[in-house]
Amino acid sequence: MKKMMSEMKERFMKRAIALATENVRSNSGGPFGAVIVKGGEIVSEGVNTVTATIDATAHAEINAIRNACRNLGTFHLDGCELYTSCEPCPMCLAASYWARIGAIYFGNRAEDAARVNFADAFLYEQIALPRKKRAIPEQEMLREKAWESFQAWIDNPAKIEY
Amino acid sequence: MKKMMSEMKERFMKRAIALATENVRSNSGGPFGAVIVKGGEIVSEGVNTVTATIDATAHAEINAIRNACRNLGTFHLDGCELYTSCEPCPMCLAASYWARIGAIYFGNRAEDAARVNFADAFLYEQIALPRKKRAIPEQEMLREKAWESFQAWIDNPAKIEY
Repeated sequence: MKKMMSEMKERFMKRAIALATENVRSNSGGPFGAVIVKGGEIVSEGVNTVTATIDATAHAEINAIRNACRNLGTFHLDGCELYTSCEPCPMCLAASYWARIGAIYFGNRAEDAARVNFADAFLYEQIALPRKKRAIPEQEMLREKAWESFQAWIDNPAKIEY
Repeated sequence: MKKMMSEMKERFMKRAIALATENVRSNSGGPFGAVIVKGGEIVSEGVNTVTATIDATAHAEINAIRNACRNLGTFHLDGCELYTSCEPCPMCLAASYWARIGAIYFGNRAEDAARVNFADAFLYEQIALPRKKRAIPEQEMLREKAWESFQAWIDNPAKIEY
């Protein structure tokens, strides 16, 4: 049983890697592929399409999560596992938390991605820094006024929480 | 001149806040709105549509970045500024780095979002932790095999870097 589980996991990871490699060979985008699995079945796949779809957010995992949400008709992927050819960047890791992914399996590490000039490791450093020390300047403005949108949320009995 | 600049910035932030509040009042999604500005002009807007479009990644800033990429026809938003009604969560902050946003202005803080039950502050804590201490389990698999996709990237003279 344990061996079967482990073979299944390897099959999903090999699929994610194959998607990544094929994405490069077909000149469709960066070397990243991901699959989302639920109950032993692939429910969605994604590849990096930043350049193909002109979308800075179109990483393999983001695309796979969006596809899984659409395929399963839900914005909460409880019970789903993410297999990705490379450790998720902070954008994709946080997306996994928002989507309530249950477990993450990755092939390459962020530091491997750094060796081929991707910024993943740099981004992990940036996000762990205090706001004022980060590379992109961040400035707070009109904080009191901004609360009005949260107050509207509190006051809305019809809100759908997520 | 300085006063004019400051008034312009306030106008953009007020627009982001108004989008957030209107999004709640129209029952379209969470209390978050964002605008992207280039050269003093709004080039895109976004609101949270997680529940409306059934997409865990559809935060206001992600939507604004995707819209800006489409409107400007580029996946690099150099020279653009992001005005958002609430401090970006780690997903949206990392997306801003990938998109090369030049500056970020925010209204509510992550800790304000926590007061209305959004996970932003929790996610900042998670992402700063070492892999093994995070809430979602992460496991490395087939790292050597995964390198094949990066090797394909290195070997592809037609690749479009991003």
